[in-house]
Amino acid sequence: MPKLNIGLIGCGFMGRAHTNAYKRVMDFFPELKYEPVLKAVCSRDETATKQFASQWGYQTRETDWRRLVERPDIDAVDICVPNKLHKEIALAVAANGKIVLCEKPLAMNSTEGEEMVAAVDKAGVPNMVWYNYRRIPAVSLAKTLVDEGKLGQQIYHYRANFLQDWTISPEVPQGGHGTWRLEAQAAGSGVTGDLLAHCIDTAIWLNGPIRDVSAMTETFVKERKHAESGLVQPVGIDDACAFLCHFANGSLGLFESTRFARGHKALYTFEMNGRDASVRWDLHDLHRLEYFDHRDEGRLRGWRSIHVTDHGGGHPYMDKWWVPGLLIGYEHSFVHQCADFLATLERGEPCAPTFCDALQTQRVCDAVLKSAKTRRWVEV
Amino acid sequence: MPKLNIGLIGCGFMGRAHTNAYKRVMDFFPELKYEPVLKAVCSRDETATKQFASQWGYQTRETDWRRLVERPDIDAVDICVPNKLHKEIALAVAANGKIVLCEKPLAMNSTEGEEMVAAVDKAGVPNMVWYNYRRIPAVSLAKTLVDEGKLGQQIYHYRANFLQDWTISPEVPQGGHGTWRLEAQAAGSGVTGDLLAHCIDTAIWLNGPIRDVSAMTETFVKERKHAESGLVQPVGIDDACAFLCHFANGSLGLFESTRFARGHKALYTFEMNGRDASVRWDLHDLHRLEYFDHRDEGRLRGWRSIHVTDHGGGHPYMDKWWVPGLLIGYEHSFVHQCADFLATLERGEPCAPTFCDALQTQRVCDAVLKSAKTRRWVEV
Amino acid sequence: MPKLNIGLIGCGFMGRAHTNAYKRVMDFFPELKYEPVLKAVCSRDETATKQFASQWGYQTRETDWRRLVERPDIDAVDICVPNKLHKEIALAVAANGKIVLCEKPLAMNSTEGEEMVAAVDKAGVPNMVWYNYRRIPAVSLAKTLVDEGKLGQQIYHYRANFLQDWTISPEVPQGGHGTWRLEAQAAGSGVTGDLLAHCIDTAIWLNGPIRDVSAMTETFVKERKHAESGLVQPVGIDDACAFLCHFANGSLGLFESTRFARGHKALYTFEMNGRDASVRWDLHDLHRLEYFDHRDEGRLRGWRSIHVTDHGGGHPYMDKWWVPGLLIGYEHSFVHQCADFLATLERGEPCAPTFCDALQTQRVCDAVLKSAKTRRWVEV
Amino acid sequence: MPKLNIGLIGCGFMGRAHTNAYKRVMDFFPELKYEPVLKAVCSRDETATKQFASQWGYQTRETDWRRLVERPDIDAVDICVPNKLHKEIALAVAANGKIVLCEKPLAMNSTEGEEMVAAVDKAGVPNMVWYNYRRIPAVSLAKTLVDEGKLGQQIYHYRANFLQDWTISPEVPQGGHGTWRLEAQAAGSGVTGDLLAHCIDTAIWLNGPIRDVSAMTETFVKERKHAESGLVQPVGIDDACAFLCHFANGSLGLFESTRFARGHKALYTFEMNGRDASVRWDLHDLHRLEYFDHRDEGRLRGWRSIHVTDHGGGHPYMDKWWVPGLLIGYEHSFVHQCADFLATLERGEPCAPTFCDALQTQRVCDAVLKSAKTRRWVEV
Repeated sequence: MPKLNIGLIGCGFMGRAHTNAYKRVMDFFPELKYEPVLKAVCSRDETATKQFASQWGYQTRETDWRRLVERPDIDAVDICVPNKLHKEIALAVAANGKIVLCEKPLAMNSTEGEEMVAAVDKAGVPNMVWYNYRRIPAVSLAKTLVDEGKLGQQIYHYRANFLQDWTISPEVPQGGHGTWRLEAQAAGSGVTGDLLAHCIDTAIWLNGPIRDVSAMTETFVKERKHAESGLVQPVGIDDACAFLCHFANGSLGLFESTRFARGHKALYTFEMNGRDASVRWDLHDLHRLEYFDHRDEGRLRGWRSIHVTDHGGGHPYMDKWWVPGLLIGYEHSFVHQCADFLATLERGEPCAPTFCDALQTQRVCDAVLKSAKTRRWVEV
Repeated sequence: MPKLNIGLIGCGFMGRAHTNAYKRVMDFFPELKYEPVLKAVCSRDETATKQFASQWGYQTRETDWRRLVERPDIDAVDICVPNKLHKEIALAVAANGKIVLCEKPLAMNSTEGEEMVAAVDKAGVPNMVWYNYRRIPAVSLAKTLVDEGKLGQQIYHYRANFLQDWTISPEVPQGGHGTWRLEAQAAGSGVTGDLLAHCIDTAIWLNGPIRDVSAMTETFVKERKHAESGLVQPVGIDDACAFLCHFANGSLGLFESTRFARGHKALYTFEMNGRDASVRWDLHDLHRLEYFDHRDEGRLRGWRSIHVTDHGGGHPYMDKWWVPGLLIGYEHSFVHQCADFLATLERGEPCAPTFCDALQTQRVCDAVLKSAKTRRWVEV
Repeated sequence: MPKLNIGLIGCGFMGRAHTNAYKRVMDFFPELKYEPVLKAVCSRDETATKQFASQWGYQTRETDWRRLVERPDIDAVDICVPNKLHKEIALAVAANGKIVLCEKPLAMNSTEGEEMVAAVDKAGVPNMVWYNYRRIPAVSLAKTLVDEGKLGQQIYHYRANFLQDWTISPEVPQGGHGTWRLEAQAAGSGVTGDLLAHCIDTAIWLNGPIRDVSAMTETFVKERKHAESGLVQPVGIDDACAFLCHFANGSLGLFESTRFARGHKALYTFEMNGRDASVRWDLHDLHRLEYFDHRDEGRLRGWRSIHVTDHGGGHPYMDKWWVPGLLIGYEHSFVHQCADFLATLERGEPCAPTFCDALQTQRVCDAVLKSAKTRRWVEV
Repeated sequence: MPKLNIGLIGCGFMGRAHTNAYKRVMDFFPELKYEPVLKAVCSRDETATKQFASQWGYQTRETDWRRLVERPDIDAVDICVPNKLHKEIALAVAANGKIVLCEKPLAMNSTEGEEMVAAVDKAGVPNMVWYNYRRIPAVSLAKTLVDEGKLGQQIYHYRANFLQDWTISPEVPQGGHGTWRLEAQAAGSGVTGDLLAHCIDTAIWLNGPIRDVSAMTETFVKERKHAESGLVQPVGIDDACAFLCHFANGSLGLFESTRFARGHKALYTFEMNGRDASVRWDLHDLHRLEYFDHRDEGRLRGWRSIHVTDHGGGHPYMDKWWVPGLLIGYEHSFVHQCADFLATLERGEPCAPTFCDALQTQRVCDAVLKSAKTRRWVEV
């Protein structure tokens, strides 16, 4: 069985999630040809890297990502560092002719994203961005229904939100290890790139391109202490962002994201209303897809709460796991994405979302931020 | 339009609910021929009766039910007093050749119930018992589905419960105006006659006769002060009751009722599982029927939450009220029962549940109490 | 007991809902001093008016609203006709020194609304607009919690939507008796005035003034047959409308309404996120208020599903109805509003929302429509 | 780090679930001292064993469990074979002085169970039964609340059910690889040992011993084809079972299990009502605990839907996984049980549920089956 030597850059939350996917994928998808190997892990912090390598079983370690990228024993580099480094690393990986996997969002902005797309295109290397929510079985099922036309000839509405509440306290710092997502220089934006990007990726995937947007953003806490320097500094990110939009297919879109919605930890929901049917989904109960079909007999129309755990019933990915009725969770979306990536590699096909796909999301994010700043509708 | 002069006995909770039904029915069911008239109200308490008559618009008052029953200007007598008086009054009403309407349960026990059935049969007077939950649109819809065979050729399971929590405090008294339901001499039994009777009535209606039962009862608070005398006395009623049973159709039944289920005010739920489909319902959200149809496409099977408010979709009774999506409540079940009663009167037909129907429920209650006492299975 | 002679103009859906409120209020609020009397009903259609008067018990009839408004035996005029007539009638009522009650929205636009406010102010007559959802107990409870500061010192987010699906079919006509809401000349706007107006009224009531808006509207079905003339004509109303806004208190708002959301009959929901707590509500299950309190012990934090039916627990209005756990419905919101109106009349106080209050909502609607047209942020 | 060499017997559903736990536990609980090693796997079917060993990474294979049990390089034997073999294997493992882990239920009946308890006691070997649902964080949280007395001084009710629908079709065979649970000779009983055993284990753990039971069982499909022989034979197991019981603490219990409840895949729910608070849980949404606290302010009482994913809030096990709001699933309960087992091993303590604990559950199962057969109440 051919080995696929993975070099991971970044030992944070996403580093763990991806590593877990690499370690588990062959147990549940044994038919795959390429087997990921935890060849090397890299981060600036030597102690942390050592501890991470030991815990997860990486064979070797690096503290300089440039070295990792150049190592001949690495087949694929997985970028799990703050957004500000995505571009530079990705360009180096491509230049070295290696496979490049990148945590979302693709880049700090679409200008960077375009460079990255150009680089992987030029190098001809396989590439993928970890918009993992596509691979939650209930979400994948929604995609199938949409593609089959189950929702009807015309789509009228798409709405999504991603609500959290973890930064309400002004005591939460910005910058540093666990809180770089709150620092504009490291993250590029706040909830727009971190949370709305997920919503936008799914939306484009399900409902096609977004044409124009009108957005607003807000920073509720104006100053925060920096986690490393301890200095109180202005906050540069958006704590909340909402936007209206038109999709190319004529439907209306409504998106909202915030880290100030008390009571919600990770309420990513979407809903899509078509002429004949509607679907909706919520990350808090990720194993359920709600489905309403107007073609049902009048008396018996109702939102169906589909427990997407029944492989006998045809639910995607579920034949790989346990028995009907039993839940899988968040981390499985990464395992699925890893499996899909390995399968496409085997077939010599691109694995969506590619850098190019993710660039579309980045362009919407850019338009959103521009619209919020200019208080005007912005074409994507 | 012919008037139907109502004589109401009892000014408590049920007296209000029935009166409200009489007053509203012609507004929403104007096609009915017989119009109820609030001719007389009667209770022992002269002050309360006067206040009630004034508030609700009864034309006259009585304090002795025997006088009311004999009044030639009364067409129908509605019995809303504690259970211990049901039989005596009903017999007198029948003897006077009047229509007799009786709040549930029919009687203190089935022996009394049999006398009542014999009396109305002999007198040939229309009669009905107010098992009002049959007329909640979602419950009526369930009945239609069952009758059409939508659940499949075989029914496997029926389960119901009725959970409350209002008597947990030992400070709640027994006996007297608002708490006669806690006094065995007035009520006959506790939750069995008060709450389970509802569950049993619906169950027999939907799923046919019950063959045998194994029950247990419990009285958690052993002594309570009497509301009128102030004396602390042993509690004679069942605070909780649960039973297993077999239905004649081969399905298994499971019933539970209690007033000690912290967190539930009026959780009357039932669920019925057939070979092809299942239904379930909950009084706390009485406008919804949950429906699962195994004949749906495998990927799209799920419990449908049917918002039973859509008369365009064929939901029973809803064409009489507002527009789709807008709720009616508890009291409307009485309005519907009143309307159905008036319609059957017009057609010269009995209106279910008749005394005879309610006697079946009484027999199950008796079997349940006997089983709990003897710790044996009891045939109904 | 002093009588309050009601003159109702309009026999449609709202005419029924208001009439029902007048007829029922004294049964459940017997302590009120003023008793509404169904003195006269008026509509252009003589047959319909006759039938309506007979069904509901109006003492007299008119076919010309000007006559009704001038009748000396009428104390209060209730305007339940299409929006285009609100202003003219209201001005006449005020000029006649009578109480004026008006179905929402107040007017076709805020210019009209200002005239109406000026008229009732000048005449010094009591006035009220039927934004009935304020009086649903769960919504009233939310208001109390907000006023007590339970949500915390700062509010971050308010979001609301009102989703329906009844006009998806292009076969639904515009204009005429049941479908005047689809004709721009009669209704002024589509979902903005019909549905969003409710959302905006509640929002301002709970969360204070709205400062500016950015909106989009859409008309999915471009032509419809007219219900009366049969002519196919362009559709002038908005089928859907969504907007972003800033509240004066610094919170962000997001509103959406449509009649093209397949699967929703009357999904009016709102949610409000404060520093310490959040609330949310849904008209489809109107008896429940969802409440999240961050001050709860960490392990036990969760959205509470409060069944707002427990008068013993202090739930507003519920002491007037049945017992804890038992539902009231949509129509009761009108009964409550009627009761509150009568009580304020007794005390010589205004009853919110007055014409002046409703004008604020109208101004937001105007700003929304203007923003949608100009594709710019508009100050309210 | 000391290795703990695991010998697994059985390559079915449970073999996979346990193996997954062994493989993942050190990634997420790196502080543990003992590290499980997949030393050997054993089943009669050589091909299947080979395939399983290869997929999951077992170092060696056996086809005779007696050989495995005697191998000196095995520290712990994990029994994942049909129930009929539990006793014999467990006795052999104990006799060899090895750790013994056994899939639930402990045995075919309590007589066997007693022998097993005696054997492990005599041998002094660590032992545990895989009642994994105890380790779902929401269930663990419920246990903590009960132990702290949060539910109040007195418990009134405990109810649980486990509903499935996978054997409704008479075409499902009995016996053989995937369907031995339907063959009485292999499984001992039907839903009683397979599903109710889970409910009973949790119940005793949360609410203490069960005193007596009254039960009924049913076999809806009387004959099934054998999966291996193809012969149509009578069905010996219970398709459904329900029972009433008294707990030693005075509370009433109600349990039901079936494989004929159309619409439910794995609806394991329990609810416990105490004087002050109640809890309920459902395996279909295993990450939520519903909690009602009567001590909350009256207006704000409601069932709290606690999303048990917030380690910052103190939710058990969740600090090991991802971030608040993100779900773990079914398989994680085995990882937790494995981690707890390793931790107790390190501390030299027993790990609940031990064989002795599981024997209590077995005794209730025996009483249930006896009661169903004799139609009498049976003391446990």
